[in-house]
Amino acid sequence: MKLAVIGVGLIGGSFALALKQAKAVSHVVGVGRNAANLKLARERGIIDSIAADPGAAARDADLVLVATPVAQFPAVFASLADSKALITDGGSTKRDVIAAARKALGKKIGRFVPAHPIAGAEKSGAAAASAELYRGKRVVITPLAENSRPSISKVEEAWTRCGARVSRMDPEEHDAVLATVSHLPHVLAYALVHGVAKRNNSEQLFSFAAGGFRDFTRIASSHPEMWRDICLANRDRVLQELKSYANELGMIRKLIQKGDAAALEKLFAGARDARNKWIQSS
Amino acid sequence: MKLAVIGVGLIGGSFALALKQAKAVSHVVGVGRNAANLKLARERGIIDSIAADPGAAARDADLVLVATPVAQFPAVFASLADSKALITDGGSTKRDVIAAARKALGKKIGRFVPAHPIAGAEKSGAAAASAELYRGKRVVITPLAENSRPSISKVEEAWTRCGARVSRMDPEEHDAVLATVSHLPHVLAYALVHGVAKRNNSEQLFSFAAGGFRDFTRIASSHPEMWRDICLANRDRVLQELKSYANELGMIRKLIQKGDAAALEKLFAGARDARNKWIQSS
Repeated sequence: MKLAVIGVGLIGGSFALALKQAKAVSHVVGVGRNAANLKLARERGIIDSIAADPGAAARDADLVLVATPVAQFPAVFASLADSKALITDGGSTKRDVIAAARKALGKKIGRFVPAHPIAGAEKSGAAAASAELYRGKRVVITPLAENSRPSISKVEEAWTRCGARVSRMDPEEHDAVLATVSHLPHVLAYALVHGVAKRNNSEQLFSFAAGGFRDFTRIASSHPEMWRDICLANRDRVLQELKSYANELGMIRKLIQKGDAAALEKLFAGARDARNKWIQSS
Repeated sequence: MKLAVIGVGLIGGSFALALKQAKAVSHVVGVGRNAANLKLARERGIIDSIAADPGAAARDADLVLVATPVAQFPAVFASLADSKALITDGGSTKRDVIAAARKALGKKIGRFVPAHPIAGAEKSGAAAASAELYRGKRVVITPLAENSRPSISKVEEAWTRCGARVSRMDPEEHDAVLATVSHLPHVLAYALVHGVAKRNNSEQLFSFAAGGFRDFTRIASSHPEMWRDICLANRDRVLQELKSYANELGMIRKLIQKGDAAALEKLFAGARDARNKWIQSS
């Protein structure tokens, strides 16, 4: 099987490495904007050759993974319009990606099986790619009415061979769920670090930040362009989550203002219990 | 040296274990509300004996560490009013702790050298105590005008022998700095988990939460009573931080609403760079 990876970063590079390790692909061709990153991907054995654009890469590929930041998907899909390969993606949002694919692929939309590997990391680029990234992680497939059963199976199998646990979801539901548990926390972490960094005494503040701050803000080291694109692609849902979170904070602010110790402790204890239950079950 | 530990949890228990490991104490007496926790502390060799109240524990102690949630400090200090021992503490807030100490100790206030070990964890109780907790961590001493130089030195030495890096700060400044880099993030993490847990589809939401969510919310598994007390003890500063964070979020919300991709990416990139610089230097 020949694989084409459009965007050889953490997501795309790890997909290639995992499928190579599983001996599921014989040749990987890579496409990307950054020549140095592609060179590194070749040196690391992530890709075997480099193509000039997605259309050229897909020409004799069996499977194409689109793994660029989501704002580039319309141009990538346009370049893939004439290809006959099965296409999947690694985009963190699904409604916008599907709309872009429909627009570019038209009647050939059935060849695109949308996917989202929930396996980010704060590192990015081919340097961060790892054959182990997807092991035990969830991948959500949001199949289209136009997808044939064999197409869906092939894409599911590819992700399964990366070690991932595949499940299916509706694109609307996907974007709502991920806005809550992933997109919102990223915005919150970026906001906290930005709020600290812009102060006059930021150096002092950082010097007294400890492990709690470090873990809370880990995701603020994520790829800025990727997260810019996600926030804008999933705008309505992210705004809704920000609003609901602002209400939550307003409620807590009132409890602190009133000095309502009992309600505050109950809220903290409820959150701790819910989190501990989740950690234990996951 | 005989040490009395009031509140044999993560902070108090780790102080005792570290000083025992350093052979800096010969006997540790513990006081606490929870008999099972005290029993465990004795079984684990954290404490050698149990006293009924802080006053009794301090009777022939050389050093007393007060390490209960901060709302209990007034009662603990009242019980220590007649003791002659040097007192330090592990409270995460300093203005309220000092006020409580002044009120209870009166003219003997010089015997209390306030301290804050910046070395929390989301685990609590004697079960979580470790001789290594303070190794390489910062401890802030906020000395009082009434403290003698030898008293300050003795307390600093005790923390140093736990492996900590000791520095000094004004109590006002301490409470402001910690509100930003510790108290605020804890409230934010509790708020996120609470906001997810209360939804009808919370089970589904948690099942798609991944590593980013796990690390972001780690501190939401912290001790609810301790954090309730901190929020109320440092109320003005915590409220100020919540307000400034709400402004930050409002600003980001506007950028997303307007679709201002350039400003959004700049903000995310600035946060990432600031965090990475901090991580590299720490």
